[in-house]
Amino acid sequence: MKVVITGGAGFLGRRLSRRLLERGRLTAPSGTSEPIDEIVLFDVGESPEAISADGVAVRTITGDIGDRDTVFGLIDRDDVSVFHLASVVSGGGEKDFDLAMRVNLDGGRHLLEAVRARDGKPRLVFASSLAVFGGAAMPTAVGDRTKQTPQTTYGITKTVLELLVNDYSRKGYLDGRSARLPTVIVRPGKPNAAASSFVSGVIREPLNGIDFALPVPETTSVAVLGYRAIVDGIVHLHELDGDRLGDDRAVGLPSLTVTVSEMIEALRRVVGTRRLGRIAVEPDPFIGNIVDTWPTVCLSERAGNLGFPSEENLDEIIRYFIEDYLEE
Amino acid sequence: MKVVITGGAGFLGRRLSRRLLERGRLTAPSGTSEPIDEIVLFDVGESPEAISADGVAVRTITGDIGDRDTVFGLIDRDDVSVFHLASVVSGGGEKDFDLAMRVNLDGGRHLLEAVRARDGKPRLVFASSLAVFGGAAMPTAVGDRTKQTPQTTYGITKTVLELLVNDYSRKGYLDGRSARLPTVIVRPGKPNAAASSFVSGVIREPLNGIDFALPVPETTSVAVLGYRAIVDGIVHLHELDGDRLGDDRAVGLPSLTVTVSEMIEALRRVVGTRRLGRIAVEPDPFIGNIVDTWPTVCLSERAGNLGFPSEENLDEIIRYFIEDYLEE
Repeated sequence: MKVVITGGAGFLGRRLSRRLLERGRLTAPSGTSEPIDEIVLFDVGESPEAISADGVAVRTITGDIGDRDTVFGLIDRDDVSVFHLASVVSGGGEKDFDLAMRVNLDGGRHLLEAVRARDGKPRLVFASSLAVFGGAAMPTAVGDRTKQTPQTTYGITKTVLELLVNDYSRKGYLDGRSARLPTVIVRPGKPNAAASSFVSGVIREPLNGIDFALPVPETTSVAVLGYRAIVDGIVHLHELDGDRLGDDRAVGLPSLTVTVSEMIEALRRVVGTRRLGRIAVEPDPFIGNIVDTWPTVCLSERAGNLGFPSEENLDEIIRYFIEDYLEE
Repeated sequence: MKVVITGGAGFLGRRLSRRLLERGRLTAPSGTSEPIDEIVLFDVGESPEAISADGVAVRTITGDIGDRDTVFGLIDRDDVSVFHLASVVSGGGEKDFDLAMRVNLDGGRHLLEAVRARDGKPRLVFASSLAVFGGAAMPTAVGDRTKQTPQTTYGITKTVLELLVNDYSRKGYLDGRSARLPTVIVRPGKPNAAASSFVSGVIREPLNGIDFALPVPETTSVAVLGYRAIVDGIVHLHELDGDRLGDDRAVGLPSLTVTVSEMIEALRRVVGTRRLGRIAVEPDPFIGNIVDTWPTVCLSERAGNLGFPSEENLDEIIRYFIEDYLEE
């Protein structure tokens, strides 16, 4: 079967494609486990690294998800599964509303329509976000039954796609599932335009010996999960029997609620003798105002009942990052 | 100032335009009360009756809300207020998904963009619906903080528009408000494609001496409100100081929870000596399945705090209908 990963050149997209190459198989629309023979990494930019495996064609396709024909061209087989990770991120969406609407909302709709046009109800996993929650009336702890009143355009578009995934699934046009992701750590590489970029940065940059300007106070709480558990959770959601999801196809992934100072403490515990860059608080109101709208405590009873994986603690997450990216 | 009512040829649109002609004024984007000098009733079909008043040009414009240029042509002044009532209804949306997406979602977005393109943040009131609620996990009583997991395409598009109205308002592109309407009774004229059509029909048809086939059991509960309170509530929402709405611009209007048999009892109480058509239960699973997804008890604490009007009881609602439509 074919796998299409939108946002495939991004960090999660590349990790997901590697995970799928390791697995080699996915549950096909027919309900049986089938070998993957083609993976397409679709993105607005080139993938920085080639990935390949015996017998599996891995192609990178560059294009605009806001262009309907481009998206329909990607979904050219009935035995296909789609992982929809492409998105304008939170900070980017606050700076360019129209781009967020075009990529996140129009692009998402093109993808749903392209999958609907195939036979046999292909599976589609959409990467949603905790940013679907927000607002003055948001409870201290959010969960799968909390009303979604996001206070960023990013969060709005994620909520809208969750709703559309539900309705396309209810109508039998496809078999959709949405994974509500907490902040993913530890992202390698450069900082990005996401308001959450600092959550990885405060671990990654000091580990690379680089001084880091923390844009929020150390007391800031965030709901995080490591990329290994996130990628495994996305695959787990794809593989679940759809009947277990019922009429609401979105599941909040598990997360750990931690303060930035707890992250820094864990970093110091794990790092051993490695010399760390310095961390200095330099408040950035643009970032702070977005982060303040996010929930910090996320109940994940549903994910627990459905067997989603989670790391044990921050130390484990940081150790994985060192193992995967610093000890090569 | 100018007023644009989408769905202006519909029952609520015509009643709203008459109410606005009576008032003669609305709060303009500037925050001051200004005289209305132009009302446009925009609809896909012609208005069945002409409405006019001294000094106010009332025009009917026929067109497709799914066409961007048409919608931009309507919003041709900065001193404008928009009442967005146009919608493919619930039963219609289940039968034609693509039309519901085009009219309710694309049309709504065109309207938000057209208002955004004006200066001074015009006010826009969007008619949402209790159909935004639904699903297996819906609580017995829904309210302004209940998660929206609608189980009709109609409800999905209404929820999406509520979210977009919130975000356009947050961004300062317009001053939007959403009124979540319960089932409006008693609609005059012919039955329509709404799954809720029977709720008016069970009163209207017998009053007109016509036998009525009730498509649901008499024990069915519905949340209803009379059209006078609905129209007054829509105007009240337009006039409210936006600061009182905060970051969630949608308000559930008050409603009365009644069973169909209570409606029939009230009808018999109010009707006096008028001869009624007979009511026979003839279950229609298409209607019943949609109605089963709707909430029946709706908390309206927020509407109460904000001073929204409500009728006292069913008897009052039925008496208004007789006064407005049967005693001419």
